[in-house]
Amino acid sequence: GYARFGVAYTDDVSADTNSTDVTSRFRLNIDATAESDAGVTFGARVRFQQNNSDEGTVDAGADDEFGTDDDVKTGGPAGTKMNGARFFARSGGLEVGVGNIYGAIEFMPGMYPIDLGLTGLGYDYTAYAFKADAYQSGSSGAAGSNGVEVMYSMGDFGMHLSASDTNDRVAAHVSYSVAGYTFALGGQDSDSDADTEFAVSASGTMGPADLTLAYADNGTTGKRTVLAATFDVGAATNVQAYVADDDSQDDTGYGIDFNHSMGGGTSLRGGVAKRLNGDTSADLGVRFNF
Amino acid sequence: GYARFGVAYTDDVSADTNSTDVTSRFRLNIDATAESDAGVTFGARVRFQQNNSDEGTVDAGADDEFGTDDDVKTGGPAGTKMNGARFFARSGGLEVGVGNIYGAIEFMPGMYPIDLGLTGLGYDYTAYAFKADAYQSGSSGAAGSNGVEVMYSMGDFGMHLSASDTNDRVAAHVSYSVAGYTFALGGQDSDSDADTEFAVSASGTMGPADLTLAYADNGTTGKRTVLAATFDVGAATNVQAYVADDDSQDDTGYGIDFNHSMGGGTSLRGGVAKRLNGDTSADLGVRFNF
Amino acid sequence: GYARFGVAYTDDVSADTNSTDVTSRFRLNIDATAESDAGVTFGARVRFQQNNSDEGTVDAGADDEFGTDDDVKTGGPAGTKMNGARFFARSGGLEVGVGNIYGAIEFMPGMYPIDLGLTGLGYDYTAYAFKADAYQSGSSGAAGSNGVEVMYSMGDFGMHLSASDTNDRVAAHVSYSVAGYTFALGGQDSDSDADTEFAVSASGTMGPADLTLAYADNGTTGKRTVLAATFDVGAATNVQAYVADDDSQDDTGYGIDFNHSMGGGTSLRGGVAKRLNGDTSADLGVRFNF
Repeated sequence: GYARFGVAYTDDVSADTNSTDVTSRFRLNIDATAESDAGVTFGARVRFQQNNSDEGTVDAGADDEFGTDDDVKTGGPAGTKMNGARFFARSGGLEVGVGNIYGAIEFMPGMYPIDLGLTGLGYDYTAYAFKADAYQSGSSGAAGSNGVEVMYSMGDFGMHLSASDTNDRVAAHVSYSVAGYTFALGGQDSDSDADTEFAVSASGTMGPADLTLAYADNGTTGKRTVLAATFDVGAATNVQAYVADDDSQDDTGYGIDFNHSMGGGTSLRGGVAKRLNGDTSADLGVRFNF
Repeated sequence: GYARFGVAYTDDVSADTNSTDVTSRFRLNIDATAESDAGVTFGARVRFQQNNSDEGTVDAGADDEFGTDDDVKTGGPAGTKMNGARFFARSGGLEVGVGNIYGAIEFMPGMYPIDLGLTGLGYDYTAYAFKADAYQSGSSGAAGSNGVEVMYSMGDFGMHLSASDTNDRVAAHVSYSVAGYTFALGGQDSDSDADTEFAVSASGTMGPADLTLAYADNGTTGKRTVLAATFDVGAATNVQAYVADDDSQDDTGYGIDFNHSMGGGTSLRGGVAKRLNGDTSADLGVRFNF
Repeated sequence: GYARFGVAYTDDVSADTNSTDVTSRFRLNIDATAESDAGVTFGARVRFQQNNSDEGTVDAGADDEFGTDDDVKTGGPAGTKMNGARFFARSGGLEVGVGNIYGAIEFMPGMYPIDLGLTGLGYDYTAYAFKADAYQSGSSGAAGSNGVEVMYSMGDFGMHLSASDTNDRVAAHVSYSVAGYTFALGGQDSDSDADTEFAVSASGTMGPADLTLAYADNGTTGKRTVLAATFDVGAATNVQAYVADDDSQDDTGYGIDFNHSMGGGTSLRGGVAKRLNGDTSADLGVRFNF
């Protein structure tokens, strides 16, 4: 797992407020595996993750739906619980996953072209805008999103098919690498008009930069185009930057960060981003792996 | 611990419905021990267990009692928390346990003669019908059932005495092994007419089979008789089967499974059971130890 | 971590009741660290702690404030969750902490002069009366108390500065060791009249005893003076005792215990205390480290 801590600044233009706060995360991964005599690896991954922004238990309110305006807090402060497990069976290039799945759109190449600053600074550079299944770190346990998926890779070719109960999503992607470039194409069918329908990405190295161009049609959530780049600016330091456009939002988003390795799995990170919604976010801090 | 995942089928005759679902469990045991210079082992066992069927927080409702009809869900999906600890001190054949105890009836020989299919398929072959204290894997922590117990074994002889706050239960069993057979006798006194009063079991090997015959008088819950057998049908495969009768239920229960070891602590398991309540359950999947 | 279990007796004079109960605690510490090439250690400490007295989720009630009379229980029994993380960066004698901080008053020498009995027996010998920031073991996660702190030590000199959101506390202590004696002086500013304002302690060895004298002005909570001593009474046994006076309470508190090491990190412990509020508490049990 890893831990990170530092300070985060947000300028919220719609609320006309800004704030500087301590930010932190602690993530402890537990990977349990066993291998059969025939070489099939069976495993499960669970996680204990705590953000400084975690909140207490909420009641769904009168409409019995979470995430709506009538939600009320009923419990005390939230402790940190174990998330839902992802179970898998893997043999050679084939992997079958059950439970808290990765999701074919989340997991396609180009969706996380960079890792901006200490905290991601809003992840506007993730083209699919989180409108598809993804591994959930939150403490929802097995009661959270559940699904099944099949992943297959052979040489330069990869594919991923996933399905879940959330909006009855079925999604797939294929990817292909050639001459240092990787191309990926994904699609999804779901009950929700606000879910991702289509995504495409291309990435590769051009001169001093690793570049990624990604596009996703996220239905009524908007069509997003992202260009992101990583430059090495020294033996232990790199700089990452992106520009993002989303037809559902007024502003163009962009951001830049630096990441300086201090050795032993520790790094100093910081960045600043102009969000698609017009806000400005910045952060600075330390991350370490364990 | 172990993890398992697969599919489960249930035909519910009273509701006239049937369903096929993904089933999974993740169980992480943590055993913490220390040994004194005099050779006494002190320890504690806790567990993080997650089933795919875990549900969110419930409110006891207007009557302030859990498990009644007016219970309502108040929280979001349930994360997985640590269960209650069982503390123990062990020296030679003597063990004293405190907290989330094993329970003398649950722990007596012959109560779990087989381990049917992937999930147990309803455990109709457990004669005491869970009407006595048992180690609780659920996330009730130390606020769950609490008790004390003493276990003693000397050569072929064993005994176990337990007491808990749940229904003011006091229970005991004695067991004796001779010439490859094991006999056990248990009794319990409690505040509840629906709790187990008496249990007896005999088990041993006859030709190719390990056989167990068990009987329990579970008060108003019914009198249950179970015959169960395990056969090895190959170097890595066994078959288990049972027949169960309970005078409180109309049907006779029976079931059969297979368990194929794939090496490295992994196994393929599946089974089918006709339940005492008339339902039919079946499952198939993989289990691995870690 | 450690675990302990045993029996506890309480005679509550105001309620005119007394009770003898099983008492237990299970504490699992997880320390995650990484060291940069320059020798800075980054780390995080989290803990899973379960007491037999843990209770279920509470609702803040109509006034939306926890800890007030209208709190109601809404959930079932409490499972055990991970507490809030303390993040730190340490280099030589300098340490910066963020999150679930230690707190400058809690952490000053002389505040925990002894460790009475199995359970602390009410900790009347802790002069600051818990009216300052301290590392929280409870399952409040990151949603609990948050703060920042700086600790520095150089040879015989030490200092600690902390600040938190709880009552806007800012606290500091300095300590100095000379010729086997340690002197410490602390102060705190906060929004609450009931918080600690000032604390001082002196400790050292005199003949067969380790002695500590501590005093704290805890605002409206009272001014408390504590004298505590530890005597070795054999190769593996010590006896600890204290006398405490608090001007906000009628009685003088005192207590005595024994602690017998059984080797391998296991010990037998017991004690009895006359509380400042007039109650009497006693305990006896086993503790083991793992």
